[in-house]
Amino acid sequence: MTKLEVCIDNLESLHTAQAAGADRIELCSALALGGLTPSFGLMQQAAHHARIPVYAMIRPRAGDFCFSDAELALMALDIAAARQAGLQGVVVGLLDDTGRVPGDALERLVQAAGPLGVTFHRAIDLSCDWRADLEVIVSAGCERILSSGQAASAEAGLQTLGEMQRQLAGRASLMPGAGVNAGNVQKILAACAVSEVHMSGMVWRGSALQSGVAMGSNDDGRINVVDADKIRAVRQLLG
Amino acid sequence: MTKLEVCIDNLESLHTAQAAGADRIELCSALALGGLTPSFGLMQQAAHHARIPVYAMIRPRAGDFCFSDAELALMALDIAAARQAGLQGVVVGLLDDTGRVPGDALERLVQAAGPLGVTFHRAIDLSCDWRADLEVIVSAGCERILSSGQAASAEAGLQTLGEMQRQLAGRASLMPGAGVNAGNVQKILAACAVSEVHMSGMVWRGSALQSGVAMGSNDDGRINVVDADKIRAVRQLLG
Repeated sequence: MTKLEVCIDNLESLHTAQAAGADRIELCSALALGGLTPSFGLMQQAAHHARIPVYAMIRPRAGDFCFSDAELALMALDIAAARQAGLQGVVVGLLDDTGRVPGDALERLVQAAGPLGVTFHRAIDLSCDWRADLEVIVSAGCERILSSGQAASAEAGLQTLGEMQRQLAGRASLMPGAGVNAGNVQKILAACAVSEVHMSGMVWRGSALQSGVAMGSNDDGRINVVDADKIRAVRQLLG
Repeated sequence: MTKLEVCIDNLESLHTAQAAGADRIELCSALALGGLTPSFGLMQQAAHHARIPVYAMIRPRAGDFCFSDAELALMALDIAAARQAGLQGVVVGLLDDTGRVPGDALERLVQAAGPLGVTFHRAIDLSCDWRADLEVIVSAGCERILSSGQAASAEAGLQTLGEMQRQLAGRASLMPGAGVNAGNVQKILAACAVSEVHMSGMVWRGSALQSGVAMGSNDDGRINVVDADKIRAVRQLLG
């Protein structure tokens, strides 16, 4: 059965995704910025409430994936926090300033994860040589690669996803993600025969605040949450 | 001497702010979303590198400040993480669904902080009864209130800031923030005689990535960092 990973950035969404049939959680902060490292408290609460594996995003700031040595040390501390919280894995992505995955730095993060699983995230979609970098990622010991085939969405990147899947040949799992929904998931599976997909199923809901003074900024207080129907619809198509 | 607090969301900015004369750091993740709880790793690295007090933002998700009991429990865990990391304080803000500060919940967070200082953040600027809520915040034991006087910027909210300062009468410190810069800080100080101000001094710099394939999304990889000149300019005006 094809597995479904759902990314979330708050507790409400964790419960919704789990009830709607997610097989794994990608635990983030700040999904509106593409996902950042969750707080230790969110890691601990997710470990407490989840009955499915939870992988923590380890991304210390928004922007590019070119991290300084100090930032890499910080990421190792956050990986230790994920282990301490009792999560099942972490999600990392690195590029050097030439646009290539730095193998040594990645290996050190995989070693820091110890028994935890490691997913390499869509930083691969910014690599200037993804064919070579797939080998770097496999060699470093990552079990999975999240990718949209170097396109803005997995659907748009299907041809490259298929080429990635053939090159990997089962040495690591390829997990298409970005814009995956009930309208395109069957097309994606038909094109590249993967065993898992990734989606957010995100919708926005209004603030709980019934009234009050507006701050005057463009922050309208809306919260992005997982839509149960969107997850269920994909789950049903996956069988 | 008027103190200067600078909010940051990455290690590079911490070093820049400190070197440029900041007196205190507000440590966040995701400043582009108004600031969220930093990861445990960032708390630990900040404690290691800072020679000035560091207060950690405790805000578990973007959106409104109406938190569920589960989210309040999560915030208490993150406050414990800030204590364990060796930081000097935390920054919190709560509203209930009527737009008022919930005193009991706030008191529990202040108790969780123990010896750490507690700043109440700009959730006060969305309160539908700030005069009553200042009393709630003082009673709960917060040492400081960050506010723009219920306006989009501290400069625009000067009249309310002045009224807040008179009502507080020294029982807690009022710290104007939002849009504070060298062009308006003297006007702000003249109007409301506070002993500290808050600023970000944010600029954007390009990615370290020299080349590479574009992902096709609207994430351009830019990083928001503190501009040393902006901090120094305010620092000099503060004397």
